[in-house]
Amino acid sequence: MSNSKKIILTEQDMPKQWYNIQADLPEPLDPPFNVRTGKPATAQDLSAIFPEEIIKQEMSAERFIDIPEKVLEVYKIWRPSPLVRAFGLEKVLDTPAKIYFKNESVSPSGSHKSNSAVAQAYYNMEAGVKRIATETGAGQWGSALSMACKMFNLECVVYMVKVSYEQKPYRKSLMQVYGAQVFSSPSDQTEVGRKVIAEDPDNQGSLGIAISEAIEDVLTHKNAKYSLGSVLNHVAMHQTVIGLEAKKQMEIAGDYPDIVIACLGGGSNFSGTAFPFIMDKLQGKKSGLKAVAVEPSACPKLSKGVLAYDFGDSSGFTPALKMYTLGHTFMPGGIHAGGLRYHGASPLVSALVKNKIVEPIAVKQREVFDAAVLFARAEGILPAPESAHAIRAAIDEALKAKEEGKSKTILFNLSGHGHFDLSAYDNYLSGKMVDYEYPSEKVCEALAHLPKI
Amino acid sequence: MSNSKKIILTEQDMPKQWYNIQADLPEPLDPPFNVRTGKPATAQDLSAIFPEEIIKQEMSAERFIDIPEKVLEVYKIWRPSPLVRAFGLEKVLDTPAKIYFKNESVSPSGSHKSNSAVAQAYYNMEAGVKRIATETGAGQWGSALSMACKMFNLECVVYMVKVSYEQKPYRKSLMQVYGAQVFSSPSDQTEVGRKVIAEDPDNQGSLGIAISEAIEDVLTHKNAKYSLGSVLNHVAMHQTVIGLEAKKQMEIAGDYPDIVIACLGGGSNFSGTAFPFIMDKLQGKKSGLKAVAVEPSACPKLSKGVLAYDFGDSSGFTPALKMYTLGHTFMPGGIHAGGLRYHGASPLVSALVKNKIVEPIAVKQREVFDAAVLFARAEGILPAPESAHAIRAAIDEALKAKEEGKSKTILFNLSGHGHFDLSAYDNYLSGKMVDYEYPSEKVCEALAHLPKI
Repeated sequence: MSNSKKIILTEQDMPKQWYNIQADLPEPLDPPFNVRTGKPATAQDLSAIFPEEIIKQEMSAERFIDIPEKVLEVYKIWRPSPLVRAFGLEKVLDTPAKIYFKNESVSPSGSHKSNSAVAQAYYNMEAGVKRIATETGAGQWGSALSMACKMFNLECVVYMVKVSYEQKPYRKSLMQVYGAQVFSSPSDQTEVGRKVIAEDPDNQGSLGIAISEAIEDVLTHKNAKYSLGSVLNHVAMHQTVIGLEAKKQMEIAGDYPDIVIACLGGGSNFSGTAFPFIMDKLQGKKSGLKAVAVEPSACPKLSKGVLAYDFGDSSGFTPALKMYTLGHTFMPGGIHAGGLRYHGASPLVSALVKNKIVEPIAVKQREVFDAAVLFARAEGILPAPESAHAIRAAIDEALKAKEEGKSKTILFNLSGHGHFDLSAYDNYLSGKMVDYEYPSEKVCEALAHLPKI
Repeated sequence: MSNSKKIILTEQDMPKQWYNIQADLPEPLDPPFNVRTGKPATAQDLSAIFPEEIIKQEMSAERFIDIPEKVLEVYKIWRPSPLVRAFGLEKVLDTPAKIYFKNESVSPSGSHKSNSAVAQAYYNMEAGVKRIATETGAGQWGSALSMACKMFNLECVVYMVKVSYEQKPYRKSLMQVYGAQVFSSPSDQTEVGRKVIAEDPDNQGSLGIAISEAIEDVLTHKNAKYSLGSVLNHVAMHQTVIGLEAKKQMEIAGDYPDIVIACLGGGSNFSGTAFPFIMDKLQGKKSGLKAVAVEPSACPKLSKGVLAYDFGDSSGFTPALKMYTLGHTFMPGGIHAGGLRYHGASPLVSALVKNKIVEPIAVKQREVFDAAVLFARAEGILPAPESAHAIRAAIDEALKAKEEGKSKTILFNLSGHGHFDLSAYDNYLSGKMVDYEYPSEKVCEALAHLPKI
């Protein structure tokens, strides 16, 4: 098989279980904290917005959890995804390293987000939920959830941050094609939204406001629940189909990665890609694995943040989570990789960084786009700006291997395509793209607003 | 395998030869005609703009032609493409028909166009060509050729019709990411372009002008050749990888289509999909096959045109081809399926229509988008407006099978995705989409301008 460009699994070879890394952590996670009650959050606290099965998964320490047959059926629309040997990129870099990438851009929504969206829609359907509300920024999560809800005949309501709604109308259109209702947030659909508009009619919205609107929507509609596309444990677990497939595919290729790389916004694509390999390390089967989480220098929570309890949203509605954070009020610079503009990192990834099992690095926007264009020209595929962070790190590792004259095996996740991001490429090609440095003063100020727990 | 959603071939199973239907036609094609010499066009006539191997293929009667190893290597970026059983669509339609679709939208450029672009770029590279010039309207062909040229280190110059250049800036950006030079046509790069601009500074361009610019570019640059994305015999042949793969995949599924369907603009995706199945019919192995070419009611050359010699471009620069045409000066209504707004149909498809081996149908824009949205919601994938013409016909055949209580096997080609066409979906979802009827008076007028041969 060594001449194969793509290593393909059959549908029969798809993983039948997700991997839950909570079973293998060096120490248990600190629980989420309910700031209103002053106590750890309970399943009861979460039940207003999540169905029971999702809450069970969120708190489970079981190592493997069965993927329901109906979820597998929908996965088959695009899964198993290809593992690709980046021969073209290796040649351009003239590196002795072997570079593989898992191609999650083949999903109908264009990114890995569908892996959890389908699972969440299924569990909500099973629980008798009729309506799911969520928020979306750039629109990848909203697209994935819209499509997933349609597959299980659920109503989907998406509060889309106004500035994105206006600047990225095509993501909105895609959600509408899938039958979702999409509201520009702040909207007139909720108390929260109406209040914001009354105070500031030109408010451009924020993820924090959109989350508040989605949660209010859930609390004011019958049979409605909320859904989140990253950060939480169950989301990370659903994404492990990526790494589980990749392990089988690497085995077919007769290889095992020395280095696993994914970009990190909230942490779901990184978790999905790396956790099944980190499992081998935690279980003592492989010791040398290097797992790299790549974040933008504009929003480097793992590299420069603090490990503390913080809210998941910028308004402080959610339970507080123990995570690396830049502070929930921190507003990162306007990089094109909208999916990475998040102040915190998944508690699971945070725990692994703390234990030095995951290594974070931060990269600048222009070097990310250098890598994206190099990749597109060598491998033909246009990457999402988020995914290009992983490509940047993979290229740097391959060049290091060349310098050292070592043959390393590198695996990265191509989490999504860039078909909806061409204005970002325009910005790069026109020479106008700017870098955003780590804004230490803004971070300091935001960290002053951490909840006191 | 009957439960499989996707039927997947390995790279080793890829066809190693293209199928040339010229070997099996009931009668040989009428040759292209050189209006300037008043004689059939010779290889010599074509050698100024095409490399020798392409001209040989254009005129060949050999049944199978080897696909070069280096072309296969690039095909492996996305090929073999999946054959998908449309279980979701079947369920929504509640039909006894089995519906399969070949998914050509998985190519990096987003459509089947890459199949011929890669082959053409390769043969030009082999012939020592350094620069390829082409025209593009909506941009699918330009994207495919840009990517293909980058794979073989050729310069690519694309003259993009001004109105598209301005309305579809993202297709332009994609070509630039692949390293192509893209000029808004009419441009200041050619005599033709400068003359048009001098006479009419606000000229919005046309495919005719863009072709003229591309050909002038070729004739005024060293080591430069021209490339065309449809209509011609060699292009149709390169596309037969679609149908050849689909045949193997249908065999794995234990099936053979009763009906093969593809949309038709110039004819390349229809040819690629249907010819390998029509081969069985022409060779007397299968008699019952129905092959349906779906065109827009706004531009129904096969359904309403005449079979006559006509120019390939609207300005009359190319040799004249014997084909069904609405007249080269005919300007179709502004349907969103830009790739189907072409006045003529491939001479090969035209010959098969004349011999009643291919059945044309014309469908209206709104019913096409009804089908597109139904498909997206049932199968998760957003189709290109062009491809949705094939979906419309497949749905209608499936509903007919239901009415008749017959289990038919239907195969259609999903030639491309709609990620760059969401403004068209917006237009549909907003209820503002209009239909374009067959404009008989405009056609009559255009037919008066056919060359006299």
